Amino acid sequence: MSDSFATADSAAASGALAGAREPGEAKNTAPVDAVTCGPIYSSSKAFVDVPCEDAGDCGTLHIPWRRIELTNDSTFDVYDTSGPYTAYAEDGSDCHDLADGLPRLREGWTHPVPSGGASTQLAWARAGFVTPEVRFIAAREGFEPEFVRAEVAAGRAVIPANHKHPECEPMVIGKAFMTKINANIGNSAVTSSISEEVEKMVWATRWGADTVMDLSTGKDIHDTREWILRNSPVPIGTVPIYQALEKVNGDPVKLTWELYRDTIIEQCEQGVDYMTVHAGVLLRYVPLAAKRVTGIVSRGGSIMAAWCLAHHQESFLYTHFGELCEILREYDVTFSLGDGLRPGSIADANDEAQLAELRTLGELTGIAKSYGVQVMIEGPGHVPMDKIVENVRLEEEWCEEAPFYTLGPLATDIAPGYDHITSAIGAAMIAQAGTAMLCYVTPKEHLGLPNRDDVKTGVITYKIAAHSADLAKGHPKAQERDDALSTARFEFRWRDQFALALDPDTAVEYHDETLPAEPAKTAHFCSMCGPKFCSMRISQDIREYAAENGLDTVEAIEAGMAEKSEEFAEAGNRVYLPIDAK
Amino acid sequence: MSDSFATADSAAASGALAGAREPGEAKNTAPVDAVTCGPIYSSSKAFVDVPCEDAGDCGTLHIPWRRIELTNDSTFDVYDTSGPYTAYAEDGSDCHDLADGLPRLREGWTHPVPSGGASTQLAWARAGFVTPEVRFIAAREGFEPEFVRAEVAAGRAVIPANHKHPECEPMVIGKAFMTKINANIGNSAVTSSISEEVEKMVWATRWGADTVMDLSTGKDIHDTREWILRNSPVPIGTVPIYQALEKVNGDPVKLTWELYRDTIIEQCEQGVDYMTVHAGVLLRYVPLAAKRVTGIVSRGGSIMAAWCLAHHQESFLYTHFGELCEILREYDVTFSLGDGLRPGSIADANDEAQLAELRTLGELTGIAKSYGVQVMIEGPGHVPMDKIVENVRLEEEWCEEAPFYTLGPLATDIAPGYDHITSAIGAAMIAQAGTAMLCYVTPKEHLGLPNRDDVKTGVITYKIAAHSADLAKGHPKAQERDDALSTARFEFRWRDQFALALDPDTAVEYHDETLPAEPAKTAHFCSMCGPKFCSMRISQDIREYAAENGLDTVEAIEAGMAEKSEEFAEAGNRVYLPIDAK
Repeated sequence: MSDSFATADSAAASGALAGAREPGEAKNTAPVDAVTCGPIYSSSKAFVDVPCEDAGDCGTLHIPWRRIELTNDSTFDVYDTSGPYTAYAEDGSDCHDLADGLPRLREGWTHPVPSGGASTQLAWARAGFVTPEVRFIAAREGFEPEFVRAEVAAGRAVIPANHKHPECEPMVIGKAFMTKINANIGNSAVTSSISEEVEKMVWATRWGADTVMDLSTGKDIHDTREWILRNSPVPIGTVPIYQALEKVNGDPVKLTWELYRDTIIEQCEQGVDYMTVHAGVLLRYVPLAAKRVTGIVSRGGSIMAAWCLAHHQESFLYTHFGELCEILREYDVTFSLGDGLRPGSIADANDEAQLAELRTLGELTGIAKSYGVQVMIEGPGHVPMDKIVENVRLEEEWCEEAPFYTLGPLATDIAPGYDHITSAIGAAMIAQAGTAMLCYVTPKEHLGLPNRDDVKTGVITYKIAAHSADLAKGHPKAQERDDALSTARFEFRWRDQFALALDPDTAVEYHDETLPAEPAKTAHFCSMCGPKFCSMRISQDIREYAAENGLDTVEAIEAGMAEKSEEFAEAGNRVYLPIDAK
Repeated sequence: MSDSFATADSAAASGALAGAREPGEAKNTAPVDAVTCGPIYSSSKAFVDVPCEDAGDCGTLHIPWRRIELTNDSTFDVYDTSGPYTAYAEDGSDCHDLADGLPRLREGWTHPVPSGGASTQLAWARAGFVTPEVRFIAAREGFEPEFVRAEVAAGRAVIPANHKHPECEPMVIGKAFMTKINANIGNSAVTSSISEEVEKMVWATRWGADTVMDLSTGKDIHDTREWILRNSPVPIGTVPIYQALEKVNGDPVKLTWELYRDTIIEQCEQGVDYMTVHAGVLLRYVPLAAKRVTGIVSRGGSIMAAWCLAHHQESFLYTHFGELCEILREYDVTFSLGDGLRPGSIADANDEAQLAELRTLGELTGIAKSYGVQVMIEGPGHVPMDKIVENVRLEEEWCEEAPFYTLGPLATDIAPGYDHITSAIGAAMIAQAGTAMLCYVTPKEHLGLPNRDDVKTGVITYKIAAHSADLAKGHPKAQERDDALSTARFEFRWRDQFALALDPDTAVEYHDETLPAEPAKTAHFCSMCGPKFCSMRISQDIREYAAENGLDTVEAIEAGMAEKSEEFAEAGNRVYLPIDAK
């Protein structure tokens, strides 16, 4: 794959991206021409300005939206995660040079220093400060800044925003807000390249990924992450144990706290916004997992279990947790406390190993918050539908309602190749119950690494799950988009139906497979029923006829206006207007 | 498309398929070579014989299974809807001639005549008779025949099996049993052919469709249905109003009871097993629907609404419902009482129009059952997750727990192109709440007619939803397949993981995209993590090490066997066995 992208000038790339990179570390594998730029179907990038009053010195905030242009001369704005990439020209020819990185949006923003000394969103919120990030988020989500601040202060929401990732557009993860989704990317020892991973990040955020985790395990971990961070408009998460393990050539027994600590600092310096730390995998839990149908399926969990067992010592992540908190606090990196013992099969769901670890994560949540560090909690995995709500209940009870961040869960094990769907079922349900962020699963889960199409399919599928949950939770404004799309559908505004869809391109493609002709885009019927059987059209005709003839209420019907019915019979052909394509 | 399949000998075809077909009606468009024959991956067709004692004269029942051959010298049998098509040779060369139709499995079975005079499964069950169909179903589902009979007698389950469709393998629809799925096929005025529709039936049942509805609306409705019925191993459903409307050139105002009655009889004579009848769309409900965001989205519903309004009369389906019952009873055709006023958008869910119709369907349920006719109730549609359970609760309360048969529901409107997924979320939840059968939705819903790939995607997606619900409901044996697949996954039996999957072909294809080499099929790692990071493999190593060294209990761990840990450290490389492909 390495020949599929341009090789950048090594000096320029290393200069522009110097940042936390060690001199000499720069590689000449810059993915300069490899990303997708240009607007989404019938949409443009729009910014709504919000003054940054009383929130520190940040001037005017420019809140990004995707503005959908509708054919009835109106527009519809939707929450937009795509950053500047969708603001470029149709052909992407003016796309920024990845070697330059994105504009450093938050660089000029200033923050107060609370008396406690911690420079984190949690500490600021607790001290009553509305930060620029909080104000930005309030405008994106449609809440009052004070409400956002209060949720962060209570630990029910987090704002993953490393001080060293100024390119990131602030976003919030918490159950009171829009359900967020994460897309995992990352090369492995077997396949893929830096170029592909940066494009996956751009591609995933184009379709709605709210955060991206770089789970690279192979070569060039540091550089891959650097390219992603400098060009990402969304928070980036990692699992630092993967890189630590690379440093000891893959032997978990050789891991040490010092080596792990140095890896964490390296990633904090680069700007990683949240980190998965499997500090809840305790020595005494390992035998619980050994009896399972699928043992330990978390990579981080299995690495730490092997370490604990080999040294017959408690996990260094657990014994050094306070030091970890001190490091993360300095950068305002958010903990994502990993579920190393999550169930990997229906049989293992909600078992002793999983729940024992969750209790420990609750203990660690309290410690992290006492340091002023933001925390979210990772959750399963594979869980049958009847055991899903219990996961949220226990997490909230044991972990102080810290935002729950789950992988699916998959509602059945029997559909490899379709695990975006098995997990979307579980994801929608667990989000409805209060999960704040959903980690996507692609169709390739259990089978291979996701390619570009899989990433998109995973993202769109999880946007569906998240939005379905937001509807069910009554999130303000969630239903507006459904209503706009359904109204367009009923009014045969095909282009608007496509534009309001989560994936306009696929909607257009499917429509064109059956009725490719341009007039079909405005036809008052579609290929499912053909012109004679279109229920929507008959329904519209009925509505118009009923209104014109005073038959639009139950009372009028019951008054028995038989003469009206004769008129309708005479005008019967109105129900089947000649096909027109205007 | 008509040139893509062989033209059969017209005389032979009409002879073999004569059945209810009018002489001279036979068309020379026989789709002889167009269907998929041959076994599914690593599987063979197996029959388990069950004596037909005390169930009438039916000899020995041969219960069909798909027998999966596993690499550990065991087999795993799964419920099989594919009929004889998967019993033919790999290349399908010995596939039966579609012009001959399937063997007439139920032709020799005899049934008692209950005192009430109705020859229906409901009447027989109420009279305490265990029919051959009941016995066949009990063996397929793993229940006692008496339990099946009791559920049918109570009207909580139906067995759609027209006396004139002897080719059909008996199956049951009821909430106590495996959740069933239906696949819709059918040509429209715009596209598709008989050949394609027969293949869609074969294709859909290959992947697990429990019933198939032929919703053809274009030309050749009668012949298309004949080819499908004579070759279908599963019950076939229809919406007779579509054909009736064709007979009046698409003008609903010209529909009459007599014309509809004749159409019903024609279809009963052909062997249709269940029929959607929109008898609950009453004149006074039409204004309720006119105020909606998406009006009436059911084709049958909109046709009847137009008729009622035009004539200002109550629907002839409602006023002649008793006569309808008499006709269906004669053939033991099951009512599927249609939800003509189902919501077509999130905004319209659970509204007055929908619930008014549901109450009327409850009234009709009682009437049908008083005639001894089996009944199920159709349900929505588009429903947000928080309103799904209420649909089941009201249906059960108002319709005497008649089996509920829902279309999805779609949990959001905003993802055209992905409505198999938006609806799988709703379908899984509504099935968990007690829905007995789910009508699939394909990715093309709202956009175009499904092609072969879409039919498969829809079926597999709905098998996922149905199976997820069966797991959550604790259906006996449901979890066995999950456990078998997950065990295969944990033991790196890749071929078995594929074979146990709902769609082995796609699982193999995805696996091979990343690691196509034959040794990878038995490798103890996969492309997601590569050989060094495989959590499953580390987990297995941990399990073995812990067991061998007495570290497999919490007590042993807590006893603090530090010396054991040193041994493990020394043997640390065991965690990373050299990659072997044996």
